[in-house]
Amino acid sequence: MEKRDLITTECYDKEDILKMIRLGTTLKKCIKEGYYPPLLAHKTLGMIFEQSSTRTRVAFETAMEQLGGHAQYLAPGQIQLGGHETMADTAKVLSRMVDVIMARVDEHRTVQELAKYATIPVINAMSDYNHPTQEIGDITTIFEHKCGCTKFNDLKIVFVGDATQVCASLAMVTTKVGMHFVHYGPAGHHLSEEIQSKVKANCKESGGSFMVTENEDEAMKDADFVYTDVWYGLYNAELSKEERMKIFMPKYQVTSGMLAKAKDNVKFMHCLPATRGEEVTDEVLDGPHSIAFDQAENRLTAMRAILVTLVGLPHYHDYKVSTAKHKLESTLAELF
Amino acid sequence: MEKRDLITTECYDKEDILKMIRLGTTLKKCIKEGYYPPLLAHKTLGMIFEQSSTRTRVAFETAMEQLGGHAQYLAPGQIQLGGHETMADTAKVLSRMVDVIMARVDEHRTVQELAKYATIPVINAMSDYNHPTQEIGDITTIFEHKCGCTKFNDLKIVFVGDATQVCASLAMVTTKVGMHFVHYGPAGHHLSEEIQSKVKANCKESGGSFMVTENEDEAMKDADFVYTDVWYGLYNAELSKEERMKIFMPKYQVTSGMLAKAKDNVKFMHCLPATRGEEVTDEVLDGPHSIAFDQAENRLTAMRAILVTLVGLPHYHDYKVSTAKHKLESTLAELF
Amino acid sequence: MEKRDLITTECYDKEDILKMIRLGTTLKKCIKEGYYPPLLAHKTLGMIFEQSSTRTRVAFETAMEQLGGHAQYLAPGQIQLGGHETMADTAKVLSRMVDVIMARVDEHRTVQELAKYATIPVINAMSDYNHPTQEIGDITTIFEHKCGCTKFNDLKIVFVGDATQVCASLAMVTTKVGMHFVHYGPAGHHLSEEIQSKVKANCKESGGSFMVTENEDEAMKDADFVYTDVWYGLYNAELSKEERMKIFMPKYQVTSGMLAKAKDNVKFMHCLPATRGEEVTDEVLDGPHSIAFDQAENRLTAMRAILVTLVGLPHYHDYKVSTAKHKLESTLAELF
Repeated sequence: MEKRDLITTECYDKEDILKMIRLGTTLKKCIKEGYYPPLLAHKTLGMIFEQSSTRTRVAFETAMEQLGGHAQYLAPGQIQLGGHETMADTAKVLSRMVDVIMARVDEHRTVQELAKYATIPVINAMSDYNHPTQEIGDITTIFEHKCGCTKFNDLKIVFVGDATQVCASLAMVTTKVGMHFVHYGPAGHHLSEEIQSKVKANCKESGGSFMVTENEDEAMKDADFVYTDVWYGLYNAELSKEERMKIFMPKYQVTSGMLAKAKDNVKFMHCLPATRGEEVTDEVLDGPHSIAFDQAENRLTAMRAILVTLVGLPHYHDYKVSTAKHKLESTLAELF
Repeated sequence: MEKRDLITTECYDKEDILKMIRLGTTLKKCIKEGYYPPLLAHKTLGMIFEQSSTRTRVAFETAMEQLGGHAQYLAPGQIQLGGHETMADTAKVLSRMVDVIMARVDEHRTVQELAKYATIPVINAMSDYNHPTQEIGDITTIFEHKCGCTKFNDLKIVFVGDATQVCASLAMVTTKVGMHFVHYGPAGHHLSEEIQSKVKANCKESGGSFMVTENEDEAMKDADFVYTDVWYGLYNAELSKEERMKIFMPKYQVTSGMLAKAKDNVKFMHCLPATRGEEVTDEVLDGPHSIAFDQAENRLTAMRAILVTLVGLPHYHDYKVSTAKHKLESTLAELF
Repeated sequence: MEKRDLITTECYDKEDILKMIRLGTTLKKCIKEGYYPPLLAHKTLGMIFEQSSTRTRVAFETAMEQLGGHAQYLAPGQIQLGGHETMADTAKVLSRMVDVIMARVDEHRTVQELAKYATIPVINAMSDYNHPTQEIGDITTIFEHKCGCTKFNDLKIVFVGDATQVCASLAMVTTKVGMHFVHYGPAGHHLSEEIQSKVKANCKESGGSFMVTENEDEAMKDADFVYTDVWYGLYNAELSKEERMKIFMPKYQVTSGMLAKAKDNVKFMHCLPATRGEEVTDEVLDGPHSIAFDQAENRLTAMRAILVTLVGLPHYHDYKVSTAKHKLESTLAELF
């Protein structure tokens, strides 16, 4: 079987995304009910971090352990990518010692190279270009909160503020499944041409749409989801507080007033951590529209689905099920 | 079921403490005999350290793994409490990703806030105020070494030297179960008024007693246990070697001569690490009265009991037992 | 049962080494076939690192988890050996909390002292003197690549370059099993008198031989294996790039031309990480003679064998086997 990576969701089609949503929500339900399916039994994940991270690391480590495996935390400085040893050599050696690698990297090409030389699956746990594991979690959250009653093609999502990697990733995944994506942000902080053209290609395929606007009323009209992220900019060009206030405040702060212009039952999302009082008010983040903490939990839901998809399925095929495991069994049988 | 924290043993009554001693010693026996009961199966502990620690970290991690769970080590600097993200947000997010949190913190209010906002149990793994997991380990050690032949109400324990968090915690837990606690230390290094009044309240309830003295003969007379800790002072006011020598040396160094004034079979305790040649001589720490390493082992005994009490029991209630597990089963059935 | 350490292979005889090779290759086969024997079930390894390391840490952690146990990573700075607390106290405390310790240390006497005071097995994961876990991995690799068709006594191995710890260790283990070891390196960079006399004693016992030479033709003639390592020197005396080029380049760089003077099917080995373009060319490291990545994988093979030998066998003796486990069972029964 050829190995598969998750460097970007561009290589995954709509069906793949829907399968991961379904797998993730099924596993989540099992675990809430106290059944921990050993789909990753004895598997080892190597976690490489070029910058530190709380929620990505914790979610990956919990996901591996809950499904019977183990994660090794290789902290910033504990492993060098492309220092004394070449990236290719590191990738080849790790491929002999663990079953799957995730990497949070400063530069996107680092994780691309890891994937190229590793003989085992590699997962991009955020680069300066995108954040695909966040995508799977976010689309799962959207599915859980709306899709009982509607179709992705009827949903509008508005990202407010700076075009971060999370903004790029959200645009990619929502338009892949057919949603209507709006970026409401200031000139100079829009998505790159490269991302915009990929998002437009997605829309053509899925029936979704893409718009950039600086007009709040237009952005918020009929919005089902409003999403924001911090205003810091990317790794190498972090803005000072003074600079970001000048650019984004008060126009792009998500407030109750802004939400009032969207649908009545609009949901507020944030990838967290939030800088309360900057991109979002306490009133919104802690208010009735906020699903930001459900969304955080779905980082874990996504990690489980991604890991099982990339390294758990060969194991599944030998997997004996008892009555208590029938529901999971039948979902897996339908999916794969 | 409502969640329960362990921030201080003040919220635990004598019965609760005795149950944890019994649970801990039962689990210790099981594991020594080669049976590892999976009472924490699939559970994840998030370990937050604002300062590094060897024995607390190792004991917690071993305890989780031996009972079927897993511990995530979040080292100093790897997670920020109350930095860019608010403490409340961090607590809420972690509550979605792990099952229980422990925190070693610089300031007691940090772990109090974590407990307030987390929706899962939080364990104080030492603050500048107290050290409750040490309490459970120490009272277990006292129980093991004496309680075959006597009652807590007949036991006298003397803490020698600086009124550290460990001194405060020892005073709290020993008087809670009815022991007679003496602090033998210099003026200016006594327990705070707040702690003293809580300890006195304990004594009223339990029949124990509390005394502070600078008289060695009075302190040591009939002592069953002599306990000491380093002379460094608290985190933010560490004493220089010169200062501590001037204050504590030679009067408060535990020597064979000092122990000779206690009961013949007095036991010497130390929370470790020790600064040999300062608060205790080699002769005492390595001598026949010393139970300091048994006490260190009971850090692990305590962690197992605490973790099972806070997060393992719901699992126990579904727990199928075979003949080999009957002894543990019957103890659990009696306790809960 | 008395505890056994692995500080040096000097305390292991040829039979012990052969058993570990056989145990390692059997476990490797089991795991490749999807069966993970729980020979280290519930056991905890404490991993102490005075310098950071990727492959040693990853291999140990994977080995423990694959066989049912767990490894705790105590990073540089997270645990102090011989700082505030004495080494003996640290060793005694850890012995109460984990089942086995490995340490990568700056000075060999540190790991010797740990072993002396610990009441549990201690493994040397490289010191400034030797690297015994590398030895077990390397001799396993040699066995796999040649011993179907020949005997150790017929094999010649040439180490090229600086007499690092890996060179010393390779000389020790290969002569213990009867191989013919040659060090081809410049004067001033030869093995110490102490090591040389131990290696000669090995040869006397095993029928192997030992030679040091600065003549390439003599070194390479009939060589079955050519091995090299970096030219940095030891921890405390790292050479600058300019210095090492002056000493070793171009004479001691392993090139295709050099290999051409050895046997036709000569194998190239490197403990990695490699400094490509210094001690070895890309052409050799990536070429058909190179078995460096198989060798890296056998770090893991070795860790499994060492850990099971030191702490897994008592568990094995209670170990119930089913039909699927019979092959492992019969190997174990023959070995122990």
